[in-house]
Amino acid sequence: MLGKYLENVRAKSPLIHNITNYVTVNDCANILLACGASPIMSDDCGEVEEITSICGGLNINIGTLNKDTIPAMLLAGKKANELGHPVILDPVGAGASKLRTETARRLLDEVRFTVIRGNISEIKTLAVGTGSTKGVDADVADAVTVETLDSVVAFAKEFSKKTGAVIAITGATDIVAGAEKAFVITNGHPMMARITGSGCMLTAMTAAYITANPENILEATAAAVCAMGVCGEKAYDTTVDKRAGNSSFRNYLIDKVCRLDSEDLDKGARYRIV
Amino acid sequence: MLGKYLENVRAKSPLIHNITNYVTVNDCANILLACGASPIMSDDCGEVEEITSICGGLNINIGTLNKDTIPAMLLAGKKANELGHPVILDPVGAGASKLRTETARRLLDEVRFTVIRGNISEIKTLAVGTGSTKGVDADVADAVTVETLDSVVAFAKEFSKKTGAVIAITGATDIVAGAEKAFVITNGHPMMARITGSGCMLTAMTAAYITANPENILEATAAAVCAMGVCGEKAYDTTVDKRAGNSSFRNYLIDKVCRLDSEDLDKGARYRIV
Amino acid sequence: MLGKYLENVRAKSPLIHNITNYVTVNDCANILLACGASPIMSDDCGEVEEITSICGGLNINIGTLNKDTIPAMLLAGKKANELGHPVILDPVGAGASKLRTETARRLLDEVRFTVIRGNISEIKTLAVGTGSTKGVDADVADAVTVETLDSVVAFAKEFSKKTGAVIAITGATDIVAGAEKAFVITNGHPMMARITGSGCMLTAMTAAYITANPENILEATAAAVCAMGVCGEKAYDTTVDKRAGNSSFRNYLIDKVCRLDSEDLDKGARYRIV
Repeated sequence: MLGKYLENVRAKSPLIHNITNYVTVNDCANILLACGASPIMSDDCGEVEEITSICGGLNINIGTLNKDTIPAMLLAGKKANELGHPVILDPVGAGASKLRTETARRLLDEVRFTVIRGNISEIKTLAVGTGSTKGVDADVADAVTVETLDSVVAFAKEFSKKTGAVIAITGATDIVAGAEKAFVITNGHPMMARITGSGCMLTAMTAAYITANPENILEATAAAVCAMGVCGEKAYDTTVDKRAGNSSFRNYLIDKVCRLDSEDLDKGARYRIV
Repeated sequence: MLGKYLENVRAKSPLIHNITNYVTVNDCANILLACGASPIMSDDCGEVEEITSICGGLNINIGTLNKDTIPAMLLAGKKANELGHPVILDPVGAGASKLRTETARRLLDEVRFTVIRGNISEIKTLAVGTGSTKGVDADVADAVTVETLDSVVAFAKEFSKKTGAVIAITGATDIVAGAEKAFVITNGHPMMARITGSGCMLTAMTAAYITANPENILEATAAAVCAMGVCGEKAYDTTVDKRAGNSSFRNYLIDKVCRLDSEDLDKGARYRIV
Repeated sequence: MLGKYLENVRAKSPLIHNITNYVTVNDCANILLACGASPIMSDDCGEVEEITSICGGLNINIGTLNKDTIPAMLLAGKKANELGHPVILDPVGAGASKLRTETARRLLDEVRFTVIRGNISEIKTLAVGTGSTKGVDADVADAVTVETLDSVVAFAKEFSKKTGAVIAITGATDIVAGAEKAFVITNGHPMMARITGSGCMLTAMTAAYITANPENILEATAAAVCAMGVCGEKAYDTTVDKRAGNSSFRNYLIDKVCRLDSEDLDKGARYRIV
């Protein structure tokens, strides 16, 4: 049951270092606080090694990367590796520009990641160079469907074997794969694609889950993905009730994470292991 | 009727490249998603040309310009021109500093804009160098009143003729002017001035409207301005009902854009053509 | 009674220049608008002196400081001093990295601050170099308790004497100290620690209060701290009523500031002078 991984986040309140984009950074900070963790944001080369040293885990998100933050990501990632901290990568928009693709690849070359989370197009770009990213969203051509599910799971396991990282491919159906075992998760709601930051928030929250559960990275990642999906479903119900729209949905989503307990998660999680 | 321009945004879901300020960037992303478009934010010189190439339109907002993002605005703007993409300028705070005024002027010199949207003080600064900006807000001395309306419309038409851009001057009364024809729009609510980002969100949304309606730039801009105003009125009603304040108003505003349909827009739009 | 300081903010609508972090910047802008002030954000060395010149007060927050913004903070701070504008410092995370600690110290050396607001760990770091900051939150070891209150008040008065600034140490109990007199404030709610930006928003709002009340810096700072605490209590009540979470709490907090009047503040403020 996945609820215990949530409880560990609340019990340990891990401090997470985030080098992330300025679009969704506030939401990432609030989702970390909602799930029971603490955020710190810092991206200057003059302090990132020191900041990551006082934290438990590191979240690297390339959503608005630039010439100053790219070296900071590399410095912080290497320091976190040296200290044995979990490190997660969100390769936002890999495939949309050479800078994003090459930065993501260089991060993979120089930093050992514990988890990599992206949409299918981003992950395919990293793994095989052929994802057809539509900006920061997955391309329709890459969609995970009933027909393609088995091959995407096999691909994710293979990429996990190659990188040593748990691979989380999120979309309508989510796949969380280690080298030998994968979770296929069907929680969530299409409304999550109508706000900015669903993916960034999930990556930040996953950083908290893996930092609080270092012995069970695969399960903790699956727990974070299920938790976000369950909260997406609950948030949608509230949105519809109140005849609201995407901005309120964003607030409800974070609210639901704030109020989610292990029982809710165990009851709401929908996954199978393959 | 303006509703069809809204429908085209939802049907085509244009991808909009935003080089914008870090204050309201999250709201800009969410309003683009609310109206049916997709946002991508990117401001590093190493990728902006490539990013703008995969998009349909470009939104340049100088709200927190700096030495790194100014050249990125120029690079992206020229590339968008080369590709024939619509480009919109939001000259936030032009007149408040030499850097802002000169950057806005340089952008006008080197990039062809499809639309320029600002408050009256910003637009006067660009056109004649005499707007008296109060920070990022219009100065009272510049207010568009019953007495000054005709001369402001004439000024906007003239500036449109000079620049080749549709000129959108927004405030209590909004003016959207081409060289020969202008919309005078009276939608909106004073509460919109009590949140940060009303202007930035409108500019971002206008980028989506003109990208989805390239044959009708003047009408599409007027449709975006009316849509935002109608949603401001609806959001205010909800705010008052719930005894809420400006932060909730911001959420309701985006929510209303998310739920607005062409019928609502046609019914709610208040404008005359002069 | 503190209500009159609130009224002065609404009457004078001071324009506040903010050099602040990109995590909570939107909330800072909206809280300034909520309390009746106007925000402008600007952090490029090419314009900060000019921008601060057109403003009434300056807010410096080092939450995501970097090599480009540190010199901008120094330039703006010196210019504001030259013009006699109130300047407030929020030393976010001082003690968490050498860069933060040294930047905060350098700012104290080169700029005269009117108010310094931080948590106890940050302020101890500045004053005596021994705060044990946990990221951007106060360390438990530093907590202000019944036993330590008198000594913390004495420490704050001493630090005020040394710096010439009013010292605001906020947490479960807030202390606002001049050299001779201090307010001990017990408004607020623990939920304020479950959102990002409670501190940053308070600092921004305090900038507005002191700019509108230059003759009563100590009282105006206490008024801002009480106002935020009273609104935190009101926001929590609404959050509980609506079974909401931390994201809604953030919105309600800003909403309550938007609707707070001087009578509410006078009635709700809980403080004693020591």
